[in-house]
Amino acid sequence: MINQLVKNIKKTNAPIVIGLDPMLNYIPAQIQKKAFEEFGETLEGAAEAIWRFNKEIVDKTCDLIPAVKPQIAMYEQFGLPGLKVFKRTVDYCQEKGLIVIGDIKRGDIGSTSSAYAAGHIGSVQVGSKRYTPFGEDFVTVNPYLGSDGVNPFMDVCKEEKKGLFILVKTSNPSSGEFQDRQIDGKPLYELVGEKVAEWGASCMGEEYSYIGAVAGATYPEMGKTLRRIMPKAYILVPGYGAQGGKGKDLVHFFNEDGLGAIVNSSRGIIAAYKQEKYASYGEENFADASRAAVEDMIADIKDALEGR
Amino acid sequence: MINQLVKNIKKTNAPIVIGLDPMLNYIPAQIQKKAFEEFGETLEGAAEAIWRFNKEIVDKTCDLIPAVKPQIAMYEQFGLPGLKVFKRTVDYCQEKGLIVIGDIKRGDIGSTSSAYAAGHIGSVQVGSKRYTPFGEDFVTVNPYLGSDGVNPFMDVCKEEKKGLFILVKTSNPSSGEFQDRQIDGKPLYELVGEKVAEWGASCMGEEYSYIGAVAGATYPEMGKTLRRIMPKAYILVPGYGAQGGKGKDLVHFFNEDGLGAIVNSSRGIIAAYKQEKYASYGEENFADASRAAVEDMIADIKDALEGR
Repeated sequence: MINQLVKNIKKTNAPIVIGLDPMLNYIPAQIQKKAFEEFGETLEGAAEAIWRFNKEIVDKTCDLIPAVKPQIAMYEQFGLPGLKVFKRTVDYCQEKGLIVIGDIKRGDIGSTSSAYAAGHIGSVQVGSKRYTPFGEDFVTVNPYLGSDGVNPFMDVCKEEKKGLFILVKTSNPSSGEFQDRQIDGKPLYELVGEKVAEWGASCMGEEYSYIGAVAGATYPEMGKTLRRIMPKAYILVPGYGAQGGKGKDLVHFFNEDGLGAIVNSSRGIIAAYKQEKYASYGEENFADASRAAVEDMIADIKDALEGR
Repeated sequence: MINQLVKNIKKTNAPIVIGLDPMLNYIPAQIQKKAFEEFGETLEGAAEAIWRFNKEIVDKTCDLIPAVKPQIAMYEQFGLPGLKVFKRTVDYCQEKGLIVIGDIKRGDIGSTSSAYAAGHIGSVQVGSKRYTPFGEDFVTVNPYLGSDGVNPFMDVCKEEKKGLFILVKTSNPSSGEFQDRQIDGKPLYELVGEKVAEWGASCMGEEYSYIGAVAGATYPEMGKTLRRIMPKAYILVPGYGAQGGKGKDLVHFFNEDGLGAIVNSSRGIIAAYKQEKYASYGEENFADASRAAVEDMIADIKDALEGR
């Protein structure tokens, strides 16, 4: 799947991913109203509103982008109807030729990580039949439990040619509380980065490994170090846009070949119509505003990469 | 909810929790067969088998125990039908008077952690209505992202009087890979333990805090240190039984008042009928075997606590 991701990135010339993390207050009132009229002010109604919102954004942007990253929490908060729409979104994006990165940040002890891996990037056996429950192409994984929490995900990756992005240095303000603490002269996130490189060496695709890393755009200097430590790992870079990361902050996450990183923007794209810059599109044309924001993001990163 | 947990523990005199982590191969063939006859060899069929298995174990043990801990991965691996049975299990256990600890190990940046917290221990607003999607009483949380990944869970705990168990030192063999690394002369898990004590101070119940910790029975010496660092935190102790932890390993996790820890056993209870010791119950009486295993576990911990 990493080969397909690289192929998609080369084809679109856009190392970006749209975070499909819909909060209800991002969704235009008209869409919510229609969904509630049909399904009531229920979890089903909320999920339906999310679905319609997602679909329109995907339809209006899918020719420009290689991948999407639905954040499962935003669906899980609406219970089973929400998770049904998560799955529907995964399926729809794949039909449109997009790679789907399930932002699930799971991680547990061995047998439990196996179950998460089976559910999200693998399959489960029921009697004589096999099923693919959620079917994402990549998932994000939390490394706090160490190798035996990550290995089961890697096993499924190898079997199914799927991929992982392991949390190394997250984009949030307090990520340093534990991740930056010095251990034998280097911060914890570097140790995790070294592990990612080690894990990744056993799962190589053509140019890059099936095992990538998450490192926040909000910490560009750390990105530089991590790029060096994990040369074959794709880096998923959150924190661009709404969280404060800028195009010039991103260059360090890329390799000289212009590959090796994929930058996520969620709010900045899906709720673009709420920004002054894109306000002229109006609420009803929210997906056109998202398309314009995608084009601007691609240009911003292109400029930054060309200017380095 | 911590007050209710302590009350339940005092009433049952059993500081234990049954891990409802059903794997299909734990479930007697007869139950699977009936579920598949009715629902086919489908995800629905697998989920129905899990539900029947859980219900019988809960019915046969609920008078002996204060709490259960369903591991959501074991349900999530069967997709939406699995998660439906997770919710059904949560509801049923609460009807039976049990505290439900959702073993979800979630953790993300602020707005995303808020969504997980709302979905699992809080509620969500849809138009003019509010819903409680999963409704567990406690959840487990991964601390790798630091305070701003944990705070949104704490906010919901305060509002809803729910509780958390934060991963500090997990029971698995490679937990030390990152958790034991020395930082300023102490291991990472101690720093996390100190944070748990700090977070917990702002969420006190009557005797203990709403914010507890997870520390594995497989590391009793570390349990001793953590007990000292976090005197007001309830410690959820996995790793007893099938993972190798013994009664005598557990004493360090308890305070002098005999409270402060709750010991989990999953496989050792729910698949007890597969052990030589309980084989005489036979597969059809699997839940009676579970009851006997619960009684033995309670006696083992009681002996260990009295012998200290």
